[in-house]
Amino acid sequence: MPDAGQRLYAVIPAGGSGTRLWPLSRAARPKFLHPLTGSAASLLQVTVQRLAPVAAIERTYVVTGNAHAAAVARQLPDLPEENLLVEPSPRDSCAAIGLAAAVIARRDPDAMMGSFASDHLIRDQAAFLATIEDAMAGADTGFLMTIGIKPTHPETGYGYLQCGGPTGVGPVLAVAEFKEKPSLDVAQAYVSGGGYLWNAGMFVWRASVFLAELGRQQPLLHAGVTRIAQAWGGPDWDAVVGEVWPTLPMISVDHAVMEGAARGGLVATVPGDFGWNDIGDFDTLGEVLAASGAATNPGGNVVVGDAKAGPVLLPETRNAVVVAQSGRLVAAFGVEDLIVVDTDDALLVCPRDRAQDIKTLVDLVKERGEDEYL
Amino acid sequence: MPDAGQRLYAVIPAGGSGTRLWPLSRAARPKFLHPLTGSAASLLQVTVQRLAPVAAIERTYVVTGNAHAAAVARQLPDLPEENLLVEPSPRDSCAAIGLAAAVIARRDPDAMMGSFASDHLIRDQAAFLATIEDAMAGADTGFLMTIGIKPTHPETGYGYLQCGGPTGVGPVLAVAEFKEKPSLDVAQAYVSGGGYLWNAGMFVWRASVFLAELGRQQPLLHAGVTRIAQAWGGPDWDAVVGEVWPTLPMISVDHAVMEGAARGGLVATVPGDFGWNDIGDFDTLGEVLAASGAATNPGGNVVVGDAKAGPVLLPETRNAVVVAQSGRLVAAFGVEDLIVVDTDDALLVCPRDRAQDIKTLVDLVKERGEDEYL
Repeated sequence: MPDAGQRLYAVIPAGGSGTRLWPLSRAARPKFLHPLTGSAASLLQVTVQRLAPVAAIERTYVVTGNAHAAAVARQLPDLPEENLLVEPSPRDSCAAIGLAAAVIARRDPDAMMGSFASDHLIRDQAAFLATIEDAMAGADTGFLMTIGIKPTHPETGYGYLQCGGPTGVGPVLAVAEFKEKPSLDVAQAYVSGGGYLWNAGMFVWRASVFLAELGRQQPLLHAGVTRIAQAWGGPDWDAVVGEVWPTLPMISVDHAVMEGAARGGLVATVPGDFGWNDIGDFDTLGEVLAASGAATNPGGNVVVGDAKAGPVLLPETRNAVVVAQSGRLVAAFGVEDLIVVDTDDALLVCPRDRAQDIKTLVDLVKERGEDEYL
Repeated sequence: MPDAGQRLYAVIPAGGSGTRLWPLSRAARPKFLHPLTGSAASLLQVTVQRLAPVAAIERTYVVTGNAHAAAVARQLPDLPEENLLVEPSPRDSCAAIGLAAAVIARRDPDAMMGSFASDHLIRDQAAFLATIEDAMAGADTGFLMTIGIKPTHPETGYGYLQCGGPTGVGPVLAVAEFKEKPSLDVAQAYVSGGGYLWNAGMFVWRASVFLAELGRQQPLLHAGVTRIAQAWGGPDWDAVVGEVWPTLPMISVDHAVMEGAARGGLVATVPGDFGWNDIGDFDTLGEVLAASGAATNPGGNVVVGDAKAGPVLLPETRNAVVVAQSGRLVAAFGVEDLIVVDTDDALLVCPRDRAQDIKTLVDLVKERGEDEYL
């Protein structure tokens, strides 16, 4: 058995296109591949580094689509080849996490496994690791653990966890119910009343417990990922995955397993308070990077460049968020609270307070059939 | 002698970089070469077309620098080669106009000549041509004529003409004095008091009258351009121009000739009211194109593209001025009164009410030594 600091298998589902970060985030180059961290590291790289104290790279698995396998492999040169699980087609999070659980359980039937999004930022690393330790303690007693986030505002873009009472294991609380993304009224009631946490999609459990619950609620999915995991790395793998994967139900792990497990009293949570952010849009990106002190310049502007970024000139400009990726000179003169995203083939200008609505614009691009920009 | 409609030699000095239209207008590609007219025609092409009823292309001369000779020649394929006067180095407007006057006078000693900027827009073509006819009538009586513009607001970016009394020739007024660019107070007094016109740098005169006054006030310049004009098109031209041109004083025609001529009672003006605009900045460009009905789309946005422009998407955007020249998709979402200029190597975002101050930004580019963007 590995030492306590290394007893986790980390699973990182790396998918999702991040529409609200268009035109930076694209189908071909989604959010997790971009350096939105105030350093040269991509969100995916930062995610792997953050987990390293509890899950060394040899115990880290990334589940991604065909289109991003090469980019992931290059960004994580130390990731063992067999730890890169490439989905032949997108089947939502339950298939991705289920496959990882089955592969890990085949390697280590007692495995403690955590699943973490590839494109979130966390400010307080020590608090994050402490929360994972608490979650592992909860998982040791047989719970499917979620890491909930203490809400800072009545966000309508996330699902919520309705907490039950203490479980007697450290700070671990029972989860009474998974709540869908609420209306603003409902979100306000959740936040002011207490007892609700944001569902940030971070899970910790024994792989065997999860697979048992998957088998109970989703027998077809369970059978499928088990069959694929058995063929993993063997001569039949291509044939098996090609046959089985397309038959797997396309469903999120929340709907497929967690909601039902919560009703069965099997889910618990640790309230996390470690400066979590999902960088859902450019306004949030600016806030997070400004708060971290990274990537800011006079005037409160946040500049996110990449290696080939050209000069960025922001005279008399304040609180702008500038993403410079085309290599061209980018000048914003005398503007405030504006987002400017400059990529090789598309440019976006948008006020920060409209950052959440960029999907409207992306829909327009789709409608016009300008698919090469998606 | 040509018919009345064709008795003018038109001179078009094509220089000046148009700093306030950066990054569209560059040292290598100044304002007059760009299609800022709501059509595919460049400002230079439109200028030549506008003058065609009084000055056919065979009687049109363009004075430009080495760097722009090829572009001018291509944009004006019908311009006779000998009518393209290429300056070896910039010597300001008096040398340019003086050389043209000397070349034209050598061809036609009685020539009636007009000088017109290459980068202005005029809305009312008929009124413009009528004003030129009035100016030619004034020039027939021996005046150095300017075409003054009736001020629409107390502009501090132009010089003014202080008008004297009527001359007895149609609407022609004497010019008492040339006034430098005024302070706002002074400009307000000019405009509210009446009797002042904008000096738009449009001149009409007999070449012989101008050259005589040039000889009186600027004997060195007169001797130099006369010597070059005599060699023009001959075997010694290269040698003569190489020897003489660098010795010519670098001075504007206003300072060198017109101010002194006005003191001598030799200058008169026709008040012009034909929707003149010098398109000094992107805000003005937007106003002019919106007023002309060209290049506008819903929301009052003005889009200026070129042949290779990509899609321009402006959902929930109002009164924007968008110049799209890089071929990329340009999206401005939810913004108002914003300028977005997208070129191959540089991007500008700026509020319309700061358009006059873009020089500040260009100065910053210079300071930083980013000369490739100038």
